Amino acid sequence: MFLKARPLEIEALKPIVILNRDDADELDVRPLDRVELVVNNKKVTAIVNVAEVFILKGEIGLSESVHEDLRVRMGEKVKVRPAEPPESIIFIKNKLSGNVLKSKEIEDIVADVAGQKLSDIEVTAFVTGLYMHGMAMNEIAALSHAMAEAGKSLRFKTKEIFDKHSIGGIPGDKTSLLLVPVIAAAGLTIPKTSSRAITAPAGTADRMECLCPVDLTLEEIKGVVNKTNGCLVWGGAVELAPADDMFIQVEYPLSIDPLLLPSVMSKKKAVNVKYLVIDIPTGRGVKVKTTQEAEDLANKFIDLGKKLKIKVDCVSTFADQPIGYGVGPALEAREALSTIEDGKGPKDLIDKVTCLSSVLFDFKKINNPKDKISHILKSGKADKKLREIIAAQGGDPKIKPEDIPVGKKSIKVKSNKSGRVLWINNHFITRMARVAGAPKNKGAGILLHKKLADKVKRGDILFEIYAESGYKLKKALDIFEKKNVVGVGKKYSIVLAEIPEEEKRKKYFILER
Amino acid sequence: MFLKARPLEIEALKPIVILNRDDADELDVRPLDRVELVVNNKKVTAIVNVAEVFILKGEIGLSESVHEDLRVRMGEKVKVRPAEPPESIIFIKNKLSGNVLKSKEIEDIVADVAGQKLSDIEVTAFVTGLYMHGMAMNEIAALSHAMAEAGKSLRFKTKEIFDKHSIGGIPGDKTSLLLVPVIAAAGLTIPKTSSRAITAPAGTADRMECLCPVDLTLEEIKGVVNKTNGCLVWGGAVELAPADDMFIQVEYPLSIDPLLLPSVMSKKKAVNVKYLVIDIPTGRGVKVKTTQEAEDLANKFIDLGKKLKIKVDCVSTFADQPIGYGVGPALEAREALSTIEDGKGPKDLIDKVTCLSSVLFDFKKINNPKDKISHILKSGKADKKLREIIAAQGGDPKIKPEDIPVGKKSIKVKSNKSGRVLWINNHFITRMARVAGAPKNKGAGILLHKKLADKVKRGDILFEIYAESGYKLKKALDIFEKKNVVGVGKKYSIVLAEIPEEEKRKKYFILER
Repeated sequence: MFLKARPLEIEALKPIVILNRDDADELDVRPLDRVELVVNNKKVTAIVNVAEVFILKGEIGLSESVHEDLRVRMGEKVKVRPAEPPESIIFIKNKLSGNVLKSKEIEDIVADVAGQKLSDIEVTAFVTGLYMHGMAMNEIAALSHAMAEAGKSLRFKTKEIFDKHSIGGIPGDKTSLLLVPVIAAAGLTIPKTSSRAITAPAGTADRMECLCPVDLTLEEIKGVVNKTNGCLVWGGAVELAPADDMFIQVEYPLSIDPLLLPSVMSKKKAVNVKYLVIDIPTGRGVKVKTTQEAEDLANKFIDLGKKLKIKVDCVSTFADQPIGYGVGPALEAREALSTIEDGKGPKDLIDKVTCLSSVLFDFKKINNPKDKISHILKSGKADKKLREIIAAQGGDPKIKPEDIPVGKKSIKVKSNKSGRVLWINNHFITRMARVAGAPKNKGAGILLHKKLADKVKRGDILFEIYAESGYKLKKALDIFEKKNVVGVGKKYSIVLAEIPEEEKRKKYFILER
Repeated sequence: MFLKARPLEIEALKPIVILNRDDADELDVRPLDRVELVVNNKKVTAIVNVAEVFILKGEIGLSESVHEDLRVRMGEKVKVRPAEPPESIIFIKNKLSGNVLKSKEIEDIVADVAGQKLSDIEVTAFVTGLYMHGMAMNEIAALSHAMAEAGKSLRFKTKEIFDKHSIGGIPGDKTSLLLVPVIAAAGLTIPKTSSRAITAPAGTADRMECLCPVDLTLEEIKGVVNKTNGCLVWGGAVELAPADDMFIQVEYPLSIDPLLLPSVMSKKKAVNVKYLVIDIPTGRGVKVKTTQEAEDLANKFIDLGKKLKIKVDCVSTFADQPIGYGVGPALEAREALSTIEDGKGPKDLIDKVTCLSSVLFDFKKINNPKDKISHILKSGKADKKLREIIAAQGGDPKIKPEDIPVGKKSIKVKSNKSGRVLWINNHFITRMARVAGAPKNKGAGILLHKKLADKVKRGDILFEIYAESGYKLKKALDIFEKKNVVGVGKKYSIVLAEIPEEEKRKKYFILER
């Protein structure tokens, strides 16, 4: 059948065409079937959508990607015929049925996901299949390989590549901004790619962006790392694992995360990491609730590492409150910068940097790692290295903490009780920081004044909220007024919570990784 | 945030809005999050999509349904703020995790599906959850109720409503065109709503449409049934179970059908059926392969019937070849019409009509049901009743078989062997009929000349293909030339099939119900 091309302003990356109902029936295709389009010796397979009115009989609407691939003019005739669906759909269905997939089948699925050949429905079926049936370790390894293969890769002069990863979930965690300079200053190579926040107040890329550009090209990253031993860049700019972005689009609305392991490890594989320390924040308000769960997850990461030839060690870290005091890109960048100047700052932050760095040192059997790390931090070597990296990435190496702008509007929130801080609710801290504008408004966030077990007198400041507008500040404050964000008291109550009969379980979902 | 309305030509039934990336970040919403729109005292909750270029900062693209609900002009300011996702998403996630859902939760999900409040990803998660975890009988019953409640309903003078349903899969099955007049002629009420073909060469609605209109309104259906005791109409026109259409949109591309039971029974509930016979075609090429499977499915239908107060009986029928000789809407309508004239026609068709009708007679404890049915067929009473129904639905009651147009192009396919017909492959008969143009081209299809166990001489006609164009005829013939559509031989071979090492399992999926 020949149909007249009608390019549409549909920004979908997927190759979508829209047929009139009548033509679709004539071609015997239904929504989400495939058609092959041929014009000017170019051939494209596209996913069918059907319209009743908007597309006339005899026309075919083309999404931007189809239009660009075919380079047709409005009204030009396109030959259209039914095409077979990708074979990967059969493998997806096999997974739905509980089968263990072969490596080749997983490669096919991932290539089709990354290549935008599958509809949302088909990708969703795969993700829910993984979620419900779980994966054998061989499947996880195949998925990690395939996800890395489907994207670009980074190779450096040395093959001794170190890396650190946190599975996330804890607000204010600026560890990487200190750890990368420490490791690089020790002469080890650590090309850290990281993500922007999805559900958190800040991702490492958002924090680092307060100090210098983070959206570097592959070539630029190589240059920075070859010069300084390290980098702190946004992985999303270099498409290391494009299939993962597609999976996240499905996982986010469903609040499920079955691809955590392959997602993390595929990106490590793409930059050829050899030694990896994984931080597993553990506590009530994060993904991993107990040390037993942390151990199980750690064992999976270690096993997967063996299959991928990456030496992995994991650390379960205390996660019942934010790390340090600042939460939000600018507040965190300020805190990281002032801490790295002389190695003095929040004890939990310095502990975390020291502990995770020492695991990386252990891989190289470096003696007295903690002393060395302490020296690197206190002597100014780490500070110097961070500024080298900032300069290499195109920032101002002389930046001072107070140069980083924070929200124009702020409010100090005071305690109406005396006692000690008994608990800090990470979920609500995160919600407040996001409602205040983080991570989009870099200066928005929360600056804690008190942390767990700190003495508090009635009228003492518990924290400050920063925002770009009074409206957002007010909305963040509303959360404080409605929720138990920070608990102050003389002693713990035996009652943890009163649970009403039909409590709606709101979703507090953490999709950082 | 206030954004300028930009109505888009997006025909989605779902309330979709498209935000510029920047505004989405500012609102802290991601694709598939929800926003609330307020303008002119009207309020709509919509599903977020994000564009980089096509929608400018400060604009909001509105799909047709949102535009119609809000009645805004191009450029008018709309107040936009983040909204909570529907609670039903939590229940869907619970199903993904393997939980048994409560009736109230299922009602919420179905209402949101029918109300277009869920994205494709969310509906897919529900359908795959049902597929993978199965359903408890209480869940199936709740789903049937909820699907019926979400749509319109039909009530008649009498509460003694009879119905027949086939779970489908067998080409050429024109049983309902004879059974409905037989039952109605016996004085019982049988308001048959049926579907158009999804994956088959013809649905009952497609066949009947060769005789008279089938897209009647609820009021028109009542009129027909009150006058004639029966009808044969398209259920899709009256929205008896709108959620089912949404589910089918997901099931079709994935070739899965977890909603068979609630889908069938919700539609029966919507027309207040009291006595129901279900035909379960059983054989290699259909959904149900063995009598054991048929028995299991039958027991589920019977149990579900008890919960819904519908008396159900099931019959497992032979399905290793088409019913009668015609396959395709017009060829089947011709065959039904000529058979009902005097009760003479293909033995398997008459057997099936007689057997299924007698089950309905048994519900009323009518003596000698088979004799009575035979009399109704042979005496012309059934013919008269069918013509009454045709007239009441707006057709010509004097229509003769040869008045129904069949494909202008046809070809006779001959046997190159002598022997007996050993097997007929339903899948390939279906494929040939569809490639020839059925069901869209009503006159397209296959007219068998030989059926199972018939004697064949070399050069005898096996079947004819009908189509509207030589091109389609040729394509159907191609299937015959490449595939083993009809097996002719002296005796069965001990070898059923040779299976090549990496055979691709093509999908031959039957989604009729």
